[in-house]
Amino acid sequence: MAKTIPISLDVMGGDNGAEVVIPGAEIALVRHPDIRFLLYGNEKVVLPLLEKYPRVRDASTFHHCDVSVAMDAKPSQALRQGRWRSSMWRAIEAVKTGDSAVAVSAGNTGALMAMSKFCLRTMANIERPAIAAIWPTARGESVVLDVGATIGADAQQLIDFAILGGAMARALFGVEKPSIGLLNIGVEEVKGLEEVRTAGRLLRETPLRSLSYAGFVEGNDIGQGTVDVVVTEGFAGNIALKTAEGTAKQIGGYLRSAMSRTFMSKIGYIFAKSAFDRLREKMDPRKVNGGVFLGLNGIVIKSHGGTDAEGYAAAIDLAYDMVRNGLTDKIAQDLVHYHRGRFADAAPTPEGDL
Amino acid sequence: MAKTIPISLDVMGGDNGAEVVIPGAEIALVRHPDIRFLLYGNEKVVLPLLEKYPRVRDASTFHHCDVSVAMDAKPSQALRQGRWRSSMWRAIEAVKTGDSAVAVSAGNTGALMAMSKFCLRTMANIERPAIAAIWPTARGESVVLDVGATIGADAQQLIDFAILGGAMARALFGVEKPSIGLLNIGVEEVKGLEEVRTAGRLLRETPLRSLSYAGFVEGNDIGQGTVDVVVTEGFAGNIALKTAEGTAKQIGGYLRSAMSRTFMSKIGYIFAKSAFDRLREKMDPRKVNGGVFLGLNGIVIKSHGGTDAEGYAAAIDLAYDMVRNGLTDKIAQDLVHYHRGRFADAAPTPEGDL
Repeated sequence: MAKTIPISLDVMGGDNGAEVVIPGAEIALVRHPDIRFLLYGNEKVVLPLLEKYPRVRDASTFHHCDVSVAMDAKPSQALRQGRWRSSMWRAIEAVKTGDSAVAVSAGNTGALMAMSKFCLRTMANIERPAIAAIWPTARGESVVLDVGATIGADAQQLIDFAILGGAMARALFGVEKPSIGLLNIGVEEVKGLEEVRTAGRLLRETPLRSLSYAGFVEGNDIGQGTVDVVVTEGFAGNIALKTAEGTAKQIGGYLRSAMSRTFMSKIGYIFAKSAFDRLREKMDPRKVNGGVFLGLNGIVIKSHGGTDAEGYAAAIDLAYDMVRNGLTDKIAQDLVHYHRGRFADAAPTPEGDL
Repeated sequence: MAKTIPISLDVMGGDNGAEVVIPGAEIALVRHPDIRFLLYGNEKVVLPLLEKYPRVRDASTFHHCDVSVAMDAKPSQALRQGRWRSSMWRAIEAVKTGDSAVAVSAGNTGALMAMSKFCLRTMANIERPAIAAIWPTARGESVVLDVGATIGADAQQLIDFAILGGAMARALFGVEKPSIGLLNIGVEEVKGLEEVRTAGRLLRETPLRSLSYAGFVEGNDIGQGTVDVVVTEGFAGNIALKTAEGTAKQIGGYLRSAMSRTFMSKIGYIFAKSAFDRLREKMDPRKVNGGVFLGLNGIVIKSHGGTDAEGYAAAIDLAYDMVRNGLTDKIAQDLVHYHRGRFADAAPTPEGDL
């Protein structure tokens, strides 16, 4: 029998907490019966719900936690009040102890990142973590990182992000050598951020075994799916992600109002309903729910706080895929290889840039 | 009789140069018969075209220029080869001499910005120019700046951009006190760029007469039209703009493929054709063609290089509106008022932070 996949859930996280998490776990479990959940939450809330979802109950171990991190808690506050004992902390800690292969939380991003950093620590040779988003494109999906963990990034950190995102693309898309691009701007006068230019030069000079460097990409390339992995620092990445979400919503609004404006267009809508359903599915933000925290000693998935059960299930699916496809090992291999290459190339003095 | 509006055109700029510029000028002239054009370009190309467009010919003075700036010319190269004598330079120079009220070019952005800076210089008290885009939103239109002139901006420069963008919004939308927001990221851990936080604090502490400061906005707020003016430094602004363009294109592609997939959806398309036409019009990038260079001693409008006559006419319309609504005066007034306020508040020593 295939090994089961242990996934820890912060059941209290998210705008609707357990009411979304447990039904979401049920949906994911139907798709992946080999998941075993480690549930962390308040027993008064969770146990009655589990009675309604016996499938989840039977596939889970439940751990009571007194504390739940509030959705508006500041990271420092969340750490102070929630360390060691909150459902969020303990879901992450299960990854650290090895009881769980991956943690999922719909709790607030700042708190989740602060706790994940504190509990799991960054990997050797990785200075700063990144949040990777899966971006639906005209050609399929791409990985975009960082979308908000880290403001600013020097050239080395951008290369770290390239390695991390490349490993994720290999795990997720099954491509052997994902293409990666550095996000930059197209105005000729300013050839972009210096850090981005330096990272580009380094990637050209010493190619990575696991990646195919495709050069600079611009904002419009992301949606076109020009590359498998788009690398940027977190400020621009976050703004790109939210701008795309806003634009999709805006166009959805235009479309709805256009289709309901005249009698003819309403009839047209009825005829084309299956096409619109397909379009809606394609643009459904729940489908790609899940920011992946990379660069820590363990994988944590952040679900949208306001998602529903279907969206939460998508975040669990993503967690599952990451584990099944060996994301952690892939990252470790790529990092070892990269740093071995740097050792080999470096001057043989111990003071060399290792 | 109302005063005519003199507009100088770099007829050779753009992927298709005069072939687009002259017909575009014709379209704009029909809408605004009070425009007088100053045309700069190569006589061999332009004069035969003017024979085909007598309306433009009769409303223009033509100035032959030997040199045209190539679309792929580097800014330094463009300056070296094109200063004093290229069609691009001379269209800008006409603004400096006062012969023209505004210059329009579809030439390459880097060269156009370099020449505009060199020829017009930045305004007193403005350190760096910005490019402002008009962004179609769910509620109408907003001004977004900077979208690529300047990478990075300190707090004072962001406030300068707020004043410039606010004056443009007043000229364009006819609102008395436009709302402005500073683009920032929503991840709680990192409260955003320090420069942005400082600018926000300054705007709260010493409100501007001409603007209503609405706080931080995120990427998704742009398309929702949350504020009239979105202020950001040029790297993130450019990436936001191009990402939105890419997303719109991507969704347009989804929609087309969905509507042509089945017989029923094709029938639905026919019924709803007017709705789709309306949607297409709403999403037509030509409608909002024109980046406005702000902060220089004169207004320069950059048209998309690859636009057609209709798009070029939209850039001329924008130039016209800016002049008719007194953009330059509004900027000057707002700047004077802002700096007077700072004088009044400053310590009475001449060494004060003026």
